[in-house]
Amino acid sequence: MNIKESFTNWIYEIQDRICTALEDTDGKARFREDEWKREEGGGGRSRIIENGEIFEKGGVNVSTVHGELPELIRKRFEVDKGWFYACGISLVLHPQSPMIPTVHANYRYFELYDEEGGDPVDAWFGGGADLTPYYLFEEDVRHFHQTCKAVCDQHHPELYPKFKESCDRYFYNEHRGESRGTGGIFFDYLRAKEECNLAFWYTLATRCGDAFLSSYLPIVERRKTEPWGEPERYFQELRRGRYVEFNLIHDRGTLFGLKTGGRIESILMSLPPRVRWDYNVKHDPASREAKLLEVLRSPRNWVD
Amino acid sequence: MNIKESFTNWIYEIQDRICTALEDTDGKARFREDEWKREEGGGGRSRIIENGEIFEKGGVNVSTVHGELPELIRKRFEVDKGWFYACGISLVLHPQSPMIPTVHANYRYFELYDEEGGDPVDAWFGGGADLTPYYLFEEDVRHFHQTCKAVCDQHHPELYPKFKESCDRYFYNEHRGESRGTGGIFFDYLRAKEECNLAFWYTLATRCGDAFLSSYLPIVERRKTEPWGEPERYFQELRRGRYVEFNLIHDRGTLFGLKTGGRIESILMSLPPRVRWDYNVKHDPASREAKLLEVLRSPRNWVD
Repeated sequence: MNIKESFTNWIYEIQDRICTALEDTDGKARFREDEWKREEGGGGRSRIIENGEIFEKGGVNVSTVHGELPELIRKRFEVDKGWFYACGISLVLHPQSPMIPTVHANYRYFELYDEEGGDPVDAWFGGGADLTPYYLFEEDVRHFHQTCKAVCDQHHPELYPKFKESCDRYFYNEHRGESRGTGGIFFDYLRAKEECNLAFWYTLATRCGDAFLSSYLPIVERRKTEPWGEPERYFQELRRGRYVEFNLIHDRGTLFGLKTGGRIESILMSLPPRVRWDYNVKHDPASREAKLLEVLRSPRNWVD
Repeated sequence: MNIKESFTNWIYEIQDRICTALEDTDGKARFREDEWKREEGGGGRSRIIENGEIFEKGGVNVSTVHGELPELIRKRFEVDKGWFYACGISLVLHPQSPMIPTVHANYRYFELYDEEGGDPVDAWFGGGADLTPYYLFEEDVRHFHQTCKAVCDQHHPELYPKFKESCDRYFYNEHRGESRGTGGIFFDYLRAKEECNLAFWYTLATRCGDAFLSSYLPIVERRKTEPWGEPERYFQELRRGRYVEFNLIHDRGTLFGLKTGGRIESILMSLPPRVRWDYNVKHDPASREAKLLEVLRSPRNWVD
């Protein structure tokens, strides 16, 4: 079995594992599944959870799409013609409680061909995972980063610092001068190079994905009984507005999906369920809300 | 007084007039005002209304900015260097009641210079007004279009059909295959040309602005007692999500403002206060909700 087949199998298998564990954690809601086909080739399996005890809205989606390169990718890679295969898993969870962070993870693999059915002329992995807290519990953020770092360190000590910095740079609301959340890891265009062949990146990406549940569920368990009320809910809905701003203004993945005719409802499952935009809201500098903003404005190192 | 000075005076004067009338209509909330300065030259006067009896959130903003051309405009106009003056009024109103449409209007004037303090080498007007209903009352949409048409027709019979079509084309959520609302008029780059000199466009733009209250307030009066409940509110919040999608993904004005360092809170006052995104919501084909979607998917002519 080659890397393409192995990774494709893995995304379906990890989708099952993650959904089962999330349903157990939620205890009330179940994922509903939509299989969809892409006219030009391939399709996907979207799984959405809504109105749960823990999860207000979330999606764990896999897709495997292939065919002729869409015009937008041809332009980006400056090629006149070409074929591709792309597959990946993408998940976003928006909890009910403002004390539990939103989480996002995505692992994907891409192959490019000069001719239909030919050998790949280029191939790479991309992905990452990042946390978006509303109220800051430093031990949660440290746990999340620590889990990501442990996986990366198994492969090479330079990976985590690099991926952490890329994550801070990528998930940044330029127009607000603040990060979307407290980061995690982000990587793209991991190609075969010197001692790091594609199998090396395959192992890294799948291990990162395999570690998702252990990076996030302990945080959910710790925070699910944390009390909250209307003021915390209000702040969460305002901050969810920033999440929407990032995804619709800056996120390359979202915009790319929308412009190349991806399935809209699967792409936009990442948007939070209830959101607010109020004018020019200010927070007391001593408040927990201001403390979060401080961290979003100057990203920190969370592990040594 | 030249056109630049006249138009600048007009935007401040019409802001006063519109805000006073909207406060009278609302009967409860008042606009709060923020004056702001732009570091590189100029500034603005934002007026925001929130939690009113009629208006849940709205902004009526004017700005007059000038200085060296920002990089983004230089690129767009393919010039290496240049100065500009831009001023305009922009308003968005999000009513509480799903029975009252959201409305947007914007009128602006732009001058370009080769050298600081020189005569303009280019100048144009832009703007328009458009309606976004949640529940469709055809007579409301007809009234809005009829008012816009009457102003345009005073100038030239070809203007309204042209501006109406531009509006349908511009306020279009490509990724959803549907219009943001039921349209109105939209124009840009109205330059001096043959018999239509700048004074001609100045008169058109200011008359359109002057007609705003009569295009919208009768609709508010007619619908403010229309009953509604949770299901209508729910649909309104979902549709507001589409409004956000348009403004953040497609609206040139919003993206331009964000990328050229405009005042974020003034630009994003256009976003609705409470918004929802649920997964793949479907409506009974015989419902009022489906009827709206039908009109958004195939824009109609609203006046003969």
